[in-house]
Parts: sequence; C-alpha cells; structure tokens
Amino acid sequence: MAATKGTAVRERIATQKHAFVREEILNVAANLIASQGFRAVTMDTIASTMGYTKSVIYYYFKNKNEILWEIFSKRYESFLHNVTTIIEEGGDPGAVLGKILRAHAICVMTNPSFTAVYNREVSELNNTQRRKLDRMHRDYDTLFEDVFKVGVKSGTFRNLNPHVTVAGMLGMCNSLYVWYNEDGPLSAEEIAETYVTILCSGCLSKPGED
Amino acid sequence: MAATKGTAVRERIATQKHAFVREEILNVAANLIASQGFRAVTMDTIASTMGYTKSVIYYYFKNKNEILWEIFSKRYESFLHNVTTIIEEGGDPGAVLGKILRAHAICVMTNPSFTAVYNREVSELNNTQRRKLDRMHRDYDTLFEDVFKVGVKSGTFRNLNPHVTVAGMLGMCNSLYVWYNEDGPLSAEEIAETYVTILCSGCLSKPGED
Repeated sequence: MAATKGTAVRERIATQKHAFVREEILNVAANLIASQGFRAVTMDTIASTMGYTKSVIYYYFKNKNEILWEIFSKRYESFLHNVTTIIEEGGDPGAVLGKILRAHAICVMTNPSFTAVYNREVSELNNTQRRKLDRMHRDYDTLFEDVFKVGVKSGTFRNLNPHVTVAGMLGMCNSLYVWYNEDGPLSAEEIAETYVTILCSGCLSKPGED
Repeated sequence: MAATKGTAVRERIATQKHAFVREEILNVAANLIASQGFRAVTMDTIASTMGYTKSVIYYYFKNKNEILWEIFSKRYESFLHNVTTIIEEGGDPGAVLGKILRAHAICVMTNPSFTAVYNREVSELNNTQRRKLDRMHRDYDTLFEDVFKVGVKSGTFRNLNPHVTVAGMLGMCNSLYVWYNEDGPLSAEEIAETYVTILCSGCLSKPGED
C-alpha cells in the first residue's frame, strides 16, 4: 500500500517536473527566437542557454518545429481563455467589448516574446499548422465579431462592417508587441485602457452617452 | 549641334529606361519576398521571374540587400510624402488627423507586397539601415503626435498619451497588410473610412459633436 502510494507520489512529481521543464524550455526558446529569429536559433542554442546538453531538449521536444508550434498554441490558449471567460459572464455589448479588448491587449503585453514569435514566425510553421492557425484566428475573431454584431443590432454600436472593425481593433492591440516595453513609464493596464477608450467610444452610435 | 541634341535625347531615354527597369525589378522582388520570405529569394529567382539573366539584375542593384533597402525607402517615401503634403495644407486638428490616417491606411493597401516586406523583413536589414529606419519611424510618428498634441491643447481631443495613441492608430492601419485583399468585397477607401471613423471619433473629447 505504502509502496503504491509512494509510486503515485513519485509519478505525480515526475509529471509535474516534466511539465515544469517543458515550460522553462518554451520560455527560453521564445526569448531566443524573439531576439534572433527562428532560423538563427538551434536546439544547441536553446540547450546551452539553459546549461543542458542537446539531448535533454530532445527528451522534451521532438524537434524545433514542435517547440515553435507549442509557443503558438500556448499564446493562442491564453488569448482564448481570457476572452471566452468574459463572454460567458455576459453583459451589455459595450461593456463586454471593452473587457475582451482589454484582456486581449494585456495578453499581448504579457510574455511579449511569445507574442513576438506569434506575430513574426508564421512562415516557419508547416502547412497543416498554418491551416490550423488560420482556423483558430477565424474562431477567435468570430467571438469579437459576434459581440460587435449584437451591439450593432441593439443600437449601441455604429453600423460598421464587423470583420473590418474587429480586424482593426485586434490589429491595434497586436501592434503593441513591436514597441511595448515592460520597463517603460506606462503600465500594461494604462496602455490597454487608452486603446479601450479610443476603440469603444469610437464605435458608439451615440458617442455622447458612453 | 544635331549630334549633341541626339546625344541628349539618347541619354534622357537611357536614364528613364534605367529608372523604369529598376522599378520593375523592385516590384517583382517585392512580390517574391512578400510571398516566399527574403531568405528564400535569390538574385537568380528575381532574374528568372523576369526572363533576365542574373547579371542584368546585378547591373541595376549591387546585391539583394540593396534591393531590400530600396523597397523600404520607397515605401517610407510614399508614407511621408502623402502625410507631409496634408499637414502643410493645414486645418483644424480633427480634420487633419482624419486625413493623415486615411492617407496612411490607403498607402498600406497600395502595393501591399511592399507593405508586407516593410513589416516582416526588418530583421534582414543591416545595423546602419535599422538605425536609419528607426529614426525615420520616429520622425514619422512625431508628425502624427504633433497633430494630436495640438488637438489635445485646443480641447478637440481627449487628453491621452500621444505616443501610445499614435502607435495604436498606426498599428491598426498597418495591420491591414495581413488580411487586406485587393479583390475583396470592400474598397481600400471604404476600409480606410471605417478606421478613420473609429479612431477620430474615439479621440474626441466631446464625442457627440463630431
């Protein structure tokens, strides 16, 4: 019994350790790829930065492409998680749009190296991954477009093309990865607030009443 | 006398022909680099796409880097030309901001392969070129920020951080290169108008009065 329990604990620790090391490898790889570009970074570079041999990295990831795809998946999951949670909570479209845009902008500024890789290295994904990413983006944009459409229908928002509007809004927030600096004078929250103010009041059909 | 005149004409034609071929090479190179990435495109690829030998391309451009930098310079010049012309014409800050944002957005959608290269291939420039580009971007952003500051001072615009606001506005317009399709259902003018509406009314301090 004790032995079984011991085995279970050991297995749990091993699983957690495995997840922890994978996470650390992804963080190091994202930083390296963001600053040097995907092609310049090798499994060797990642290993030596962490004080590991290359075989350790290969124990956790099949190849560099698997690391890249995991960075994309993780970034997308954080975008999606925040936004779906807010939408499920419900509320009037003006308030919901503000909240999901704020969440998106803050996510772009959290771990900026992940966002940099996400925005710059799409061409390094294989065709299957690119098609999957396109679908993910369409699904994600649709979440925003649906909130916007409800607001247009209820008369809260101007009757603008939802696809063009949402693409522009997310484009504004995504561009933060180019210049946002964690050590800069403004916090991520202050910057996100500026964009939410412009975007939400810019969409209101009766702008005086926000 | 006639011989001298003949020489002048021949030289003028030669100069124009030289400029024309350079322009054609840049257009072909921009399309190739936008679709395949800078590293995948060789002087050979450019030459064979145009039905030339490689030596013809080398007659017009020293190397691939000179072609890349010329694409960046040309794109920047068109951005700058449109915006400075509008600012020189003057007007109230609300109207001027709308006009320069519209001009910028339309420029992004004109020759989209130039914009794609401009946004994606910065890492392929050498250090001198990157420093030069950084200065060009700062100068360009300052043009927009100055218009915005005048509008804040006069009470037209909300008192938002000019740097963050302008970076976001241009970020929204620049993101068009990712998805804008010349053969899509909406014209460049219609899309630009949607963004100008959102951005300008989103900045107004008394939004009911736009």
